[in-house]
Amino acid sequence: MTDLPDGPIAVLCGGVGAAKLLTGLQRVVAPERITAIANVGDDLELHGLHVSPDLDTITYTTAGAVSRERGWGLDGESWQAMEMVGRYGGVDWFSLGDRDLGTHLYRTHRLAEGASLGEATAEIVAGWDLGFHLLPVTDDRLRTMVTTADEGEITFQEYFVRRQHDVAVSAVRFDGAEDATPAPGVLDAIADATVIVIAPSNPVVSIDPVLAVPGVRDAIAARRNDVVAVSPIVGGEALKGPADRLLTELGRESSVVGVADWYRDITGVLVIDNVDAHHAPGIEALGIRPVVTNTIMSEPTITDALARTCLAAR
Amino acid sequence: MTDLPDGPIAVLCGGVGAAKLLTGLQRVVAPERITAIANVGDDLELHGLHVSPDLDTITYTTAGAVSRERGWGLDGESWQAMEMVGRYGGVDWFSLGDRDLGTHLYRTHRLAEGASLGEATAEIVAGWDLGFHLLPVTDDRLRTMVTTADEGEITFQEYFVRRQHDVAVSAVRFDGAEDATPAPGVLDAIADATVIVIAPSNPVVSIDPVLAVPGVRDAIAARRNDVVAVSPIVGGEALKGPADRLLTELGRESSVVGVADWYRDITGVLVIDNVDAHHAPGIEALGIRPVVTNTIMSEPTITDALARTCLAAR
Repeated sequence: MTDLPDGPIAVLCGGVGAAKLLTGLQRVVAPERITAIANVGDDLELHGLHVSPDLDTITYTTAGAVSRERGWGLDGESWQAMEMVGRYGGVDWFSLGDRDLGTHLYRTHRLAEGASLGEATAEIVAGWDLGFHLLPVTDDRLRTMVTTADEGEITFQEYFVRRQHDVAVSAVRFDGAEDATPAPGVLDAIADATVIVIAPSNPVVSIDPVLAVPGVRDAIAARRNDVVAVSPIVGGEALKGPADRLLTELGRESSVVGVADWYRDITGVLVIDNVDAHHAPGIEALGIRPVVTNTIMSEPTITDALARTCLAAR
Repeated sequence: MTDLPDGPIAVLCGGVGAAKLLTGLQRVVAPERITAIANVGDDLELHGLHVSPDLDTITYTTAGAVSRERGWGLDGESWQAMEMVGRYGGVDWFSLGDRDLGTHLYRTHRLAEGASLGEATAEIVAGWDLGFHLLPVTDDRLRTMVTTADEGEITFQEYFVRRQHDVAVSAVRFDGAEDATPAPGVLDAIADATVIVIAPSNPVVSIDPVLAVPGVRDAIAARRNDVVAVSPIVGGEALKGPADRLLTELGRESSVVGVADWYRDITGVLVIDNVDAHHAPGIEALGIRPVVTNTIMSEPTITDALARTCLAAR
């Protein structure tokens, strides 16, 4: 058993990978100690609804309600609404399940009533009886925009879902970031945390939009010695999604060293997979301490061990 | 066989009763001849979506897709989204089925893209391969507001669904009506029709909001000799909904004579049920010709006979 630190824990999160690590963290320490600070750059307004994919992936996964088959969305999902949208020739490239729609209906209603995204999120988390704290990094509008070779600038979901991230990217921009402020609780959670974990999410399009909210990057950098990042790149490739491709397209190295370089100002530790042990010197050369372990969360015992390693690594 | 007139037919419509008569009209004449002009005073914005209950009841019923069990909404419906809204403690007194939600998602998306309600409606009707024309009476915002003794003024759906219309009403108002204009095609459909049918809908809260759009009442009144109204009151009672109660509460008579009086400026004919035959003289006294038949559309042959009677009655 590793000796785990006391005190609050903050976790910077994207979607699927972060959600998985959070399940482990919540098994190894009391969920109440954990504040997840999540990306909202993937959010979209679709059919009049406010959809927050990363917030919902984290909630559903933590609740044990995520579809194991698909790896996203809810278990026991049905698709009647989308079939009807298809009947009318409507926009159906972004699939919204019927159960999932209930979450978007609720969130949209609360936002229209004047609730903040953070308030609506807390209510949704409470609806699943979850003990951890989930904060959108900002209550303001922030949208990840991706410049592609053939279509120019498109929204993140147009890139990620409609184009299946199968297109060359030359730039990423976080629309609205400059005018955004951290949501209530975000800066405090970072300042108060004993350990700050950067989840194994896409550095370019999941973690960077979190850091792009004015004040957040500085707050993390000020705690650099207590920050533990987990590399989403294993053996040069992303476990899921286009992190490898994006790093290369943006002129970086798709390796744990490339990730260390991306995070060099904000993390003191980088957790890398066993297969990347030979890269340890390259990471050390950037002033970051590498921690080598199994980072592929293929079963709960591995996930829990990774969670313990993160907490003990600072 | 009655001898039916040629030419276009216009039908002023509320929801369920109108939808039923429309199925008959579409069996006895070519659907392409029929233009239904529907109430939008029941429309609501809910969870960010634009819901048009009367337009959808007409579409679904005409498509043969309405739930026979419930008499509203779609057959084969599921309620996964609403269950989820309930999990969060959200607004769930207005039930939106999963299939039905697809229609609202499509409509809301098209409105956000700048389509008019009439355009979105035509697309939805086309999605069901229906041949008739369905027009909202106006593309503008018009909302039926009901003044109740205990809650003051509330929206129509708060009255009709949330309160189950089990509350005393002292006034009805059509918010936005003064500034509304008839949707493209509405005045032409009225001017061009050989016969104008006023469906057996609630005169107070279904037909009156249609007439409240500036220009519509005058256009109908100008065609009074070609207008055939069907009484929604049979034997002093509404077949469905609160028409009887509303007439009484607003100081009118809940009878076919009360309906005749309500419509005296705009209809030349009132079709009444056999049980009300003794009221014929009272209707004639108002300058309206009564036509007595079976108006209870309990099976298709009766519905079709009523449709023929309406068309032949002018």
